Amino acid sequence: MRQLAHRLDRLGTETAFSVAQAAAAWKAQGNRVYPFHLGDINIPTAPHIVEAMNRAIADGYTGYCPGPGIPQLREALAEDIGSRRGIGLTPDNIVVMPGGKPVITKFLQAVMNPGQEVLYPNPGFPIYESQIEYLGGTSVPYRYLPTESGFAIDLDQVRASITPHTVAIIYNDLQNPISAESTAAEREAVAQLAQEHNLWVLSDEAYFETRYEGVSNSIASLPGMAERTVILYTFSKKFAMTGSRLGCAVAPPEIAKVLSTLNTNDESCTTHYVQWAGIEALRGPQEPVQQMLDVLRERRDAACELVNATPGMHVAVPHSTFYLFPDVTAAMERMGCTEVGDFATAALQQTGVSFCTREHFGRRQPGEERQYIRLAYSGIDVDDIRVGLDRLRQWIESA
Amino acid sequence: MRQLAHRLDRLGTETAFSVAQAAAAWKAQGNRVYPFHLGDINIPTAPHIVEAMNRAIADGYTGYCPGPGIPQLREALAEDIGSRRGIGLTPDNIVVMPGGKPVITKFLQAVMNPGQEVLYPNPGFPIYESQIEYLGGTSVPYRYLPTESGFAIDLDQVRASITPHTVAIIYNDLQNPISAESTAAEREAVAQLAQEHNLWVLSDEAYFETRYEGVSNSIASLPGMAERTVILYTFSKKFAMTGSRLGCAVAPPEIAKVLSTLNTNDESCTTHYVQWAGIEALRGPQEPVQQMLDVLRERRDAACELVNATPGMHVAVPHSTFYLFPDVTAAMERMGCTEVGDFATAALQQTGVSFCTREHFGRRQPGEERQYIRLAYSGIDVDDIRVGLDRLRQWIESA
Ligand SMILES: Cc1ncc(COP(=O)(O)O)c(C=O)c1O
Ligand SMILES: Cc1ncc(COP(=O)(O)O)c(C=O)c1O
Repeated sequence: MRQLAHRLDRLGTETAFSVAQAAAAWKAQGNRVYPFHLGDINIPTAPHIVEAMNRAIADGYTGYCPGPGIPQLREALAEDIGSRRGIGLTPDNIVVMPGGKPVITKFLQAVMNPGQEVLYPNPGFPIYESQIEYLGGTSVPYRYLPTESGFAIDLDQVRASITPHTVAIIYNDLQNPISAESTAAEREAVAQLAQEHNLWVLSDEAYFETRYEGVSNSIASLPGMAERTVILYTFSKKFAMTGSRLGCAVAPPEIAKVLSTLNTNDESCTTHYVQWAGIEALRGPQEPVQQMLDVLRERRDAACELVNATPGMHVAVPHSTFYLFPDVTAAMERMGCTEVGDFATAALQQTGVSFCTREHFGRRQPGEERQYIRLAYSGIDVDDIRVGLDRLRQWIESA
Repeated sequence: MRQLAHRLDRLGTETAFSVAQAAAAWKAQGNRVYPFHLGDINIPTAPHIVEAMNRAIADGYTGYCPGPGIPQLREALAEDIGSRRGIGLTPDNIVVMPGGKPVITKFLQAVMNPGQEVLYPNPGFPIYESQIEYLGGTSVPYRYLPTESGFAIDLDQVRASITPHTVAIIYNDLQNPISAESTAAEREAVAQLAQEHNLWVLSDEAYFETRYEGVSNSIASLPGMAERTVILYTFSKKFAMTGSRLGCAVAPPEIAKVLSTLNTNDESCTTHYVQWAGIEALRGPQEPVQQMLDVLRERRDAACELVNATPGMHVAVPHSTFYLFPDVTAAMERMGCTEVGDFATAALQQTGVSFCTREHFGRRQPGEERQYIRLAYSGIDVDDIRVGLDRLRQWIESA
């Protein structure tokens, strides 16, 4: 048979799946597993959202719909996203997609030529690097430095990495995996660099409304930024709708047109009745959103407390996302591990606690010395968080 | 602002949307419209399928699921698709996607390098040409010649068009827009060419089960073909689920793996609970499928009769799909039209009958002299078919 296409050599993926497999295999052997590896949510989609979907089906909304989404959802999204960010949006700015993830590849297809460079956060969501490289670009990582209250973008590194070939920067304020959140000054500095160097910005705002204190801010709200920024918006995390596959791009109209044509080519449209569910999610009762945040806050507090009670582990309490990214360098030393993957395997087998590590979020950068793991608390109840992380603590303590 | 990416210059789309817009505008002016332009179905998804979806939601299947689809659906698809085609399939051959359409771009990404050539039917589904060109390939059209009973692939042209750069042929037996169906000999000839020249085959089987007499056959069933063929399968047409966005690729395992990684990159997975609905569609009661076919057959018969009663129009009665592709050359002459687009506009304004034309299905080929329109009868009830096409007949008759 013929060879497959060369472009596949450049295609990456999400390697976190192998962690899920290892956890499942361990569980299948009769062991108790405490799942901190999932980016998924063990909370049901609110019933009023499901009811709206069924009303739409009963009303006959089971056929194809427009590539950029139904007008009513685009209207609701423009209003909701615009008002929460203080920017004026119209339905022409909104392109509905099957999740937030499709915005990444479609954004890159729209703005990046092969050979051009795109800056992206590393550690960061692994699809950024995969798609930049897959589409023939050069992925240029930028790092975060630990601070008192979390992490800060290494702005000097960003600045030094910009070349005449740089076309875009991917910016994930409220960051997966590290929960980093920009200060206003940092966000402005990124915006200024984008303007100075005429860069497009992909602002991944998947966790914009997954926060426990304070308010989120969008880089698109800063002067001169809306016209160069595409926002990745998703229903996944805010409304516990990860499996529904509903999100959108918020883009300047000329880019929105391109994204819409890509939709027509790639999947015609996003599931029709799920779009009606999305309208209800945005405009219906908001109590379930707050209830979920309350549940997640309790989990965060429990998890942070136990992590910081563990010898050789430390995390600053993040105000948003549902991830902790503790520094585990000293804990690893104590356990005699030099590879963070070995540490994870040992932890699973000794305590049942399952998690991803820094290695699942991009290639390690030169000079990177500290070791980190990612604990996701979206898919595990608070009681299990307490039991699991206490087992982890005891295991390390007893070494 | 920066220029957008060069690849967008090669991106096509479905232009049929403009017909829908013209029809909607005409209707908004208070006119009656008879919609023959839709590739969509005005028949609801069967209630047992919707109920299965709701059971899945109640059972908590609202989270992410595996990129290639849930194992249970892959199992059901392998069994159903394999048994209807007499080929042995396992879940490893199945990659679930949000519709059949995504199979087109993902197949091409997997097998075609920039600069290589892919044969595709023209007139044909417009996304083939768009995606071949978009991904940097050269789209090489092949044509159909009218016969007593419909249309036949111009095999001499196919043969003459194969070069050392040809990597694949797209084959849409049971064809949109022309309803062509291969004889066994024609299907074998295509298979033989594919084997002689070591070509990959994309077999678009969107209408495999939309048929009124006889049985469908898949090119993948022929000896030596399964290992070089990717089948595009969709729930859209068979189960009246166009808006649900559910389909799959059936592929050799090494290609299936690639398609699955592309899913992980592009949209993570297909809507979780819709996949459970798909299992019910395949394994639950099949009466609704037969009922829909009965409805469509009655529409086909009415439409064919009226088309063939119209001066200057002729169509052979197709056994499958829900399209007619009548030759309207003489009718256009009678009406003084030289452009088929003008004929369509005049028909809309004089009779309310709205349809796509040959021009919506690819660039006209050199030497192509006859004129064709496409009448879709999936979105219009039989009474309206009769009234609409009788108005068309009278308009042409009275000229
Ligand atoms: C940072 C980030 N961006 C985007 C996504 C995509 O989510 P979805 O495609 O479900 O909207 C995720 C999901 O985990 C994420 O963590
Ligand atoms: C020939 C052909 N292939 C593929 C498709 C894709 O359908 P879907 O993406 O709804 O499965 C269509 C839809 O009209 C079609 O006509």
